[in-house]
Order: sequence, then C-alpha cells, then structure tokens
Amino acid sequence: VATGDPIITFLSDYGTDDDFAGVCRAVIATICPAARVIDLTHGIGRHDVRAGALILAGALPYTPVGVHLAVVDPDVGASRRAVALALDDGRLLVGPDNGLLSLAAQAGGGVVQAVDIAHSEYRLQPVSATFHGRDIFAPVAAHLAAGVPLAEAGAPCDPDALVQLELPNPRHENGMLVAHALYVDRFGNVQLDAGHDDLAESGLKLGARVQLETASGVHEAQFARTFADVAQDQLLIYEDSDRRLAVAVRHGSAAARLSISSDDELRIRAK
Amino acid sequence: VATGDPIITFLSDYGTDDDFAGVCRAVIATICPAARVIDLTHGIGRHDVRAGALILAGALPYTPVGVHLAVVDPDVGASRRAVALALDDGRLLVGPDNGLLSLAAQAGGGVVQAVDIAHSEYRLQPVSATFHGRDIFAPVAAHLAAGVPLAEAGAPCDPDALVQLELPNPRHENGMLVAHALYVDRFGNVQLDAGHDDLAESGLKLGARVQLETASGVHEAQFARTFADVAQDQLLIYEDSDRRLAVAVRHGSAAARLSISSDDELRIRAK
Amino acid sequence: VATGDPIITFLSDYGTDDDFAGVCRAVIATICPAARVIDLTHGIGRHDVRAGALILAGALPYTPVGVHLAVVDPDVGASRRAVALALDDGRLLVGPDNGLLSLAAQAGGGVVQAVDIAHSEYRLQPVSATFHGRDIFAPVAAHLAAGVPLAEAGAPCDPDALVQLELPNPRHENGMLVAHALYVDRFGNVQLDAGHDDLAESGLKLGARVQLETASGVHEAQFARTFADVAQDQLLIYEDSDRRLAVAVRHGSAAARLSISSDDELRIRAK
Repeated sequence: VATGDPIITFLSDYGTDDDFAGVCRAVIATICPAARVIDLTHGIGRHDVRAGALILAGALPYTPVGVHLAVVDPDVGASRRAVALALDDGRLLVGPDNGLLSLAAQAGGGVVQAVDIAHSEYRLQPVSATFHGRDIFAPVAAHLAAGVPLAEAGAPCDPDALVQLELPNPRHENGMLVAHALYVDRFGNVQLDAGHDDLAESGLKLGARVQLETASGVHEAQFARTFADVAQDQLLIYEDSDRRLAVAVRHGSAAARLSISSDDELRIRAK
Repeated sequence: VATGDPIITFLSDYGTDDDFAGVCRAVIATICPAARVIDLTHGIGRHDVRAGALILAGALPYTPVGVHLAVVDPDVGASRRAVALALDDGRLLVGPDNGLLSLAAQAGGGVVQAVDIAHSEYRLQPVSATFHGRDIFAPVAAHLAAGVPLAEAGAPCDPDALVQLELPNPRHENGMLVAHALYVDRFGNVQLDAGHDDLAESGLKLGARVQLETASGVHEAQFARTFADVAQDQLLIYEDSDRRLAVAVRHGSAAARLSISSDDELRIRAK
Repeated sequence: VATGDPIITFLSDYGTDDDFAGVCRAVIATICPAARVIDLTHGIGRHDVRAGALILAGALPYTPVGVHLAVVDPDVGASRRAVALALDDGRLLVGPDNGLLSLAAQAGGGVVQAVDIAHSEYRLQPVSATFHGRDIFAPVAAHLAAGVPLAEAGAPCDPDALVQLELPNPRHENGMLVAHALYVDRFGNVQLDAGHDDLAESGLKLGARVQLETASGVHEAQFARTFADVAQDQLLIYEDSDRRLAVAVRHGSAAARLSISSDDELRIRAK
C-alpha cells in the first residue's frame, strides 16, 4: 500500500519532558500537513553531538528516503552554521553544522549540494536566539518535504567546508585490541569503535573466552553471537545490530559492571 | 471521517532514550507507507514480559482492529519462537512467543491461526542476533498490514503449543482477601490480581475502612470510587479503569507508601 | 501539499512509562481514523496544572487550528467539570475545567462557546472513575475532529464561569525586579514571570552584569541574547523562545545552580 506522502524523520536531544519536539512537529504539520513524521528518538543525551551522529547514521538505512531533521545543538545562537544538505542517495538532511549530520552524510554517499539556512526565507520570524529547531530547522525541513528545491531554501555553501565528526579508532597493541566506548544504550550495552574483523585479527573466535581490561579492573567475557549464548549475569562481547562490536551483560548492564562511559578505553585480549 | 489506512499498534520495552522504537517505525514506513502506527507505550519495564502482556491485553479493546506489534524479548536470539497470530476477533498479533501475546490472545477470543516467522520471507536480511524488532517483527507486521496473508508470513505452527502466561491468583483466607501486586504505574498506583467481586465477597462495601497488610506493615485504607473520595495523602482501594482492584494514595504514591512491587502479597480485611 | 485530515494536538501528564497516552491515541483512531494526532508532550509534571497550562498556551500558536486535547487532572472523578470550548480563533479545546485550558483560551481570543461534556453522548461507557482521558476527553475530541458540532458534544455552560489560572506577577521594589520561577525545562532553564520590558524598566541592557538573589544565596549573571554569549558554566538571563525572561547556565543547569523550583522568588538587580 503506497502513498505519496512525504516523509520527515526527526531526531533530537529535546527529551520527552518538554514540548520542544512536539512544537517542531506542530510547525511541520502547519507547513506541510501531508508530511508523515517518524520520530527516530528525542532521547539523545543533552548536547551529545556524537551520539546523535552515530544514531542518525545507523538509523537512516532503515528509513524511507526523505527529509531527515536532526537537532543536537549545544551552540545554538552562536556562530555554527545551520544547513540543509542533499546526499548522493537522494536524502535531504537538515540541522546544525556541528558534525551531527556528517556520519549520515558519509553513509549516504556524501553531500552533493549544501545550503546555509540561517537566513532562509522559510524560517519563522522573528527567529528566537535559543530555539532554532522550531524557528529554522523544522520549518525548512517542512518546506523541503513540501517540494521546495534545496537551492531555494538557503544560500549555497561549500560541501567541503562542513564540519566533520572525528571518531576514535581502535588499535592493535601487543596482541591486544584497544577499543573505545562509542555509545551506551538504555540496556547498558556498550558499543565499541571496533568491528568483528578487529576481533578476528586478534585471533579471537566465536565462543572464545576474552579478557576485558578497563579503568575499573580486569573482567572476563565470552565472544558470543547473542545474549542467550552466555549464562545469566555473564559478560559477553558480540557483533551488535549496527555490525559493531559491543559489550553486554545478559539480563544486566555492562556499562554499570565495567563503570564505563563514552570514550573510555577497553583493552581486549584472548584469555 | 474514515480512511482505509491500515493500523499497526506498537508496544515494547525499548524505552525512549534510544532509537530502537524509531527504527522499527521507519522499517514499517518503508514497507507499508500507508500504515498508521499507534504507539501504545515503549515504557514497559526492561524484560518485564508480564507487564507487557497485561498492558497489551488492557489496551487492545480500545484500539482499531489491525496488526498489533509487541516486543518485550529477554531471550532474543535464543530458542523462543517468533510468531504471528490471527485471533478470533480479527486482530493479528506479532511478537515473541514468550507469553507476551497470550493475555491479549485470550481476550480476543483465542488464536485461530499461528505461524512461526523466524524464517519468514518478509524478514530483513541479514537478521541480527540481537534486534529482532527491526529485522523480524516490524517487517512482518508491516507486510501483514499491507495485506500479505498470514499463511504466507511464516511456517504454520500449533496454536495450542504457544507459551501461556501464568498470573497469580487471589485467595480468601480467614475472612481476608489475599491479593498480589500485578503492575505499578507511573503514579505509583498498584494494580492487584483481584476484582470488585473479590472485595464484596469479603463483605466490604464502598466507603468501608479496610486494613491492608504488606511486608512493610499494616496500613489503613478506604474502599472508594476514586481518588477524590479520600483526603489528601490517604490510601484508598478502588476499581481501576481496567476493572481490577488497585491501591492508590491521593496525590501520592501507594507503591512508595507500601514499599510494594510486582508479585508482592497484600492481605486485605474489613476494619 | 495540503490534506483535509483533521488535527488533534495532545498534551498530558501521563508520561511515557505507561499506556495512558497510547490508549487515548487508540480511542481517537477508532472514532476518527483520519485524525492526525500531534503529541505536544506527555511529560508535564504529575498534576502540575500550571505547567500544563503554560506549555499549552505557548505551543498553540505553532500548531494548525484544530482540536486541542489536554489532560492534567489531579481531581479526576471529583466535582471539577469536564469541558469542550470553542475559541474566538477557531480552535476547540477539550479537557478538565481546572485552569489547564485557561491560558490557551485567553491567547486564542477567549471562549465563545462552552459545553460540559461529563455526560456527553460521545463518551465511552461505562465511564471509569479514574481515566477520563480515555473515557471522556479523547472520545469527545475525536468526535469534534470528525465534525460533530460543539453544541452536540455536551450541555451548554457559561464561559464566564470557567476556572481561570492565577499566575504570579513580577514587581519592582527598590530598583530591583522581583520575579518568580514559572517553569523549569529538562535542561534546567528557569522561565520567569517577567519579560524583556521588565528588565529594561530596571535599567538593564543586553550585556550588563546582573545580580540574582534567591533563597540559596547571591549569584552573578549576565543579561545576554543566548547561551553562547557567555562562557561555559556561567549564569545568564535572557529572553527565551516564549518571549519570557529565563535564567540558564551555559552547558549546565540553572535550576540546580540556584536550587530553584516553581514559584520561588528571584530578586534581580544591576550590579
């Protein structure tokens, strides 16, 4: 059952306590009543641009091609640019130019056209100094969904000048894989900056026992396919649904067990 | 104002911090753009299959007949089945076969047809080991909403072999009603496994004083119609909107007052 | 891209843990399948009628004209009225008559017609004593969205008899502006009951240093346009996106820094 309704996906750190996300949805409905808004999440940690960038890039392959609105904007009102981007795969991204969109842009084949929307004719006026989601990003996203060409939504800017997010990189050191915590989900599962191949390179195979060293001490884990492959409360390392390595505790929280948070180092070796 | 748009209701323990529910909504929109998704809640306690089953069964009588997607799945990737079920009342349920769907199935007149969807041709491939909501349940639900016949969504399985959830039962003992906490809501209201008739059987009438005994001690409450019938901060026992007995504190939290959580026993007697 | 689909906005203190809001959405979809529901927020503090009223009044100018459902209802089941109101600007409000709707009604030009819906023929029966969102407010809102005339939704009542919310008022005292905390958002930003003009009246200009006195002590802040105009962790006072004065900490929480909550007094003077 197909429809021609335009799609806007929406991700932010606005949370669910206030009406920030709701007012943006209302602005969209006012401008483009036919748009179907898909809330990806509004639970990104406050001002956590990297978490937002990771979640957005991981989610877009599962969304319809459309307009993709993302707002994690610690420097709202400062000099960071507000942009709308066309990707090679046809998606349009709208948000602050602080790296939030950069991983999704790479995943979509790169930016083929970029406009600065700070003074877009489609913004709401007067623009507040603190709520650009409502006044700039949502209205521009809605007009794009309604068919406004990207070139008319703002002033052209150089795709090569957009802010790129730097992710940490894993390394191999004395037979160990040294990885970093990228993202912790609500279940306490810890996503790493390493992949399945990195573990294999360290000589580890599914089912093997693994030693995990963090600032909190040395822990034993099992390299497993899924949670159910280890006993209750045991640590496991596995390939997660984003195809990254992750650490979990079956029916528990790895983040709590390892006292770990974003960017912390994990040293992984065969046992 | 009627539409022919198919309905998918969606309940899970995915929470609102991450994009788990959002990605499932995106998968649905990709496969069946016309589907209207009604989020019942994603706030079920982590892995709390019984709370999910109770909430789902309580909500369905208020939803349009459609496809009803539910994911509370502590054993994802293990041997539990993934199923889609047709009920006697025309509803289609999709989720893990761990009891989550069983109360709603009973309420809908029982299961008339069941299929195992672990290897459904409509799943996303490759199927991850840890996110079957995205890879199996949401895509199958979306295809069903788009009109795929249930028989084509998976391999036939025996409705009588589906996992049934066991709920505690209240009992009468020396003139007392011994009930159990089934579910605690965000307001701290405690739903019991007993009904209005059970209280009446204990000789209690609206307005009567009641003694509540829990592990934390003995408390006094009033058998009332609603919160406003008792004074600020007083305990009451009442028939809730699911027509179950519940305990509340007016403008407060009964769960906190009674130090009670799921499955705990309450002994109720006339005072 | 226009559609004729009716709009229902929805605000409540139901939270996201339970299915209260979800069941109301389901009731709406059953009665008026074409309605597009825009969730403004369900994160209003439990029973915080004033916060709900402020958020609703602030959000409506950004929403399409439609039916606006709001439920923050500490006295559900008591004698407070349940009402549906037509505003001068064409909006229809549905909710309890406890002041929740009053600020939005004023902002919409006042109430031109009011009906008491406690015994509306469009309520769900039997009406529970504790969940009027599901049994009265949502079904009446849905029928209004479907085109039922307001006069048929309930019994006429006098617009002048509706409960009005009283907000605190700022005052000038010995060259100081004495304001009150109205609302604290998830970022810890504290909205005051004063506006830009009140500060100017105290002789303060953008960029000026300001002394903030609260019960917790004396603090120094800057009168700025936006967060980025002050250094990391510094206090600022600014005009927020509702055009009210607010206090914030750049990349921090003003509510925590000042130990402040709703109704607390702030004394502001030039430094």
